[in-house]
Amino acid sequence: MTNTKPIKVAITGAAGSIGYSLIFRIASGAMLGNRPVVLHLIEAEIAAKQLKGVMMELDDCAFPLLTDCIGVTDIKKGFEGVDLAILVGAKPRGPGMERKDLLKDNGEIFKIQGQALNEVASKSVKVLVVGNPANTNALIASANAPDLSPKQFSCMTRLDHNRALTMLAKKYGTTSAQIKKMIIWGNHSLTQFPDPLHCEIDNAPAKIDESWMKNEFVPAVQQRGGKVIEARGASSAGSAANAIIDHMHDWVLGTADKDWVSMGVVSDGSYGIKSNIVFSFPVTINNGEWTVVPNLSLNEFEREMIALSEKELCEEREAIADLLG
Amino acid sequence: MTNTKPIKVAITGAAGSIGYSLIFRIASGAMLGNRPVVLHLIEAEIAAKQLKGVMMELDDCAFPLLTDCIGVTDIKKGFEGVDLAILVGAKPRGPGMERKDLLKDNGEIFKIQGQALNEVASKSVKVLVVGNPANTNALIASANAPDLSPKQFSCMTRLDHNRALTMLAKKYGTTSAQIKKMIIWGNHSLTQFPDPLHCEIDNAPAKIDESWMKNEFVPAVQQRGGKVIEARGASSAGSAANAIIDHMHDWVLGTADKDWVSMGVVSDGSYGIKSNIVFSFPVTINNGEWTVVPNLSLNEFEREMIALSEKELCEEREAIADLLG
Repeated sequence: MTNTKPIKVAITGAAGSIGYSLIFRIASGAMLGNRPVVLHLIEAEIAAKQLKGVMMELDDCAFPLLTDCIGVTDIKKGFEGVDLAILVGAKPRGPGMERKDLLKDNGEIFKIQGQALNEVASKSVKVLVVGNPANTNALIASANAPDLSPKQFSCMTRLDHNRALTMLAKKYGTTSAQIKKMIIWGNHSLTQFPDPLHCEIDNAPAKIDESWMKNEFVPAVQQRGGKVIEARGASSAGSAANAIIDHMHDWVLGTADKDWVSMGVVSDGSYGIKSNIVFSFPVTINNGEWTVVPNLSLNEFEREMIALSEKELCEEREAIADLLG
Repeated sequence: MTNTKPIKVAITGAAGSIGYSLIFRIASGAMLGNRPVVLHLIEAEIAAKQLKGVMMELDDCAFPLLTDCIGVTDIKKGFEGVDLAILVGAKPRGPGMERKDLLKDNGEIFKIQGQALNEVASKSVKVLVVGNPANTNALIASANAPDLSPKQFSCMTRLDHNRALTMLAKKYGTTSAQIKKMIIWGNHSLTQFPDPLHCEIDNAPAKIDESWMKNEFVPAVQQRGGKVIEARGASSAGSAANAIIDHMHDWVLGTADKDWVSMGVVSDGSYGIKSNIVFSFPVTINNGEWTVVPNLSLNEFEREMIALSEKELCEEREAIADLLG
């Protein structure tokens, strides 16, 4: 069944490198199964001219599914009536800048964006935060949107999830499509825990080499972003855009049968994780609603790794407590 | 019916800005209707490390359709057995460089590539030249591939075609999907002739405002690339990649019913155009074979515009006559 009502999608940081890798794919229909789309592209004043160039290029594609496109610097105009909001734009960490300063500076941005979403977006808007520190930025946006459910806010750990799939496929001599039930737990940061212990590989429970997992796999997933920067001379853009498409595709259209995905969501206390932090869990999605996968049994190593990332997220929350309204 | 045999696609200039906008879309299945794909990514030595980073990002997408991917600097390895070759890489015009020098420098590259395609590519390879001067580069590649048919070589005017569709849609208050039978004639250069006089708009023959066409539309399409650079601070990449996808999609899978597309092909003498130049014509495509749309009646203005672009292409051919083997 084709849904022909256009879906309104807002993207912040639209003219940046992730935005540029993302927008053409969304306009071509890659994200939402050929549903018509209206793009609300949002940029800072400094990139407004560049955004105009990107919009010219969108015109130059003559995309049949792109019903309309606006480019704005005013977030209230940008978020007006949107069904999906993809928050990519954020300050990068400058030289000599402490992580704490970054938290504060970006926190202010996401506070204002949360308030604007609360005021003008569709009441059923789904929000994905990509700009770092993504988990805590998502928490701030949610806390400043009292009329929206915390369940409407998420942050992205799908890029880490996808990275892990390919590493497992290479290790176990199969294709990434044959790896199911991977999990990224926790913070989209170096403390994330990529957990392959519940995976099914080629339709059978995986027998993971634990020494390889601890000494190679976990650090490789955690540090992958840096390795890409080293080789490419620029941070991940095409693969980040692809993970955004996967995340939103599954949130709107549902997860595949007998599989789940990783998604940073406001903790509901599952697995004893403190509530009031945004934590990446394994989730299944049905009718646009995610549910944390219940009843996984975790061993001591998993519990320790998860606790480390939980601790970091609690510290991040402390650092921006005044922005939580 | 799904074709499950992987199709091998070579891309030169794979780590450049058009390549980066293109590769993720091809790997996601956007070009060939969900057919598995093997990518042969080719770069100059100077960009080999960057290409490695791009390949890491492809891994990080866990694309189900991407069966394999190699990255090479040796074009014979790169073209080995490929079904499609997309030749994006070319020297840009440097400061103070004459067009003639550019023709020569790039001509050498495409001579070597034509020879390599002749030697190692699939005997039914389809070649698309994007690197400028695209028409003459395609002619050179074809002339140096005596065992392949000239019909297997093309250059891209689809970006110009798509640009024209949106401009016509805006002028006539409709959507680009409602504009059929647009034509780009000639050289992918400032002498190209974007010809809307055979268009159907909203299923009826278009009544084109001729003064608008001559004074606004034709120059706007011809000069669009420069306007994008002016606004975006970089040349068209996302929209060029999209036009590549459209061009190859239609070449492999066929043009839509009751429509045609523009494609630079080795002239078969249609419309009195000299043979032995690569000229953009309106074509329909069936079973992977293009045919120039016959029997269009052209008025004097059209004939004059077409002759101008033909003249330029003959001059380009003169300038590189020694490369034609």
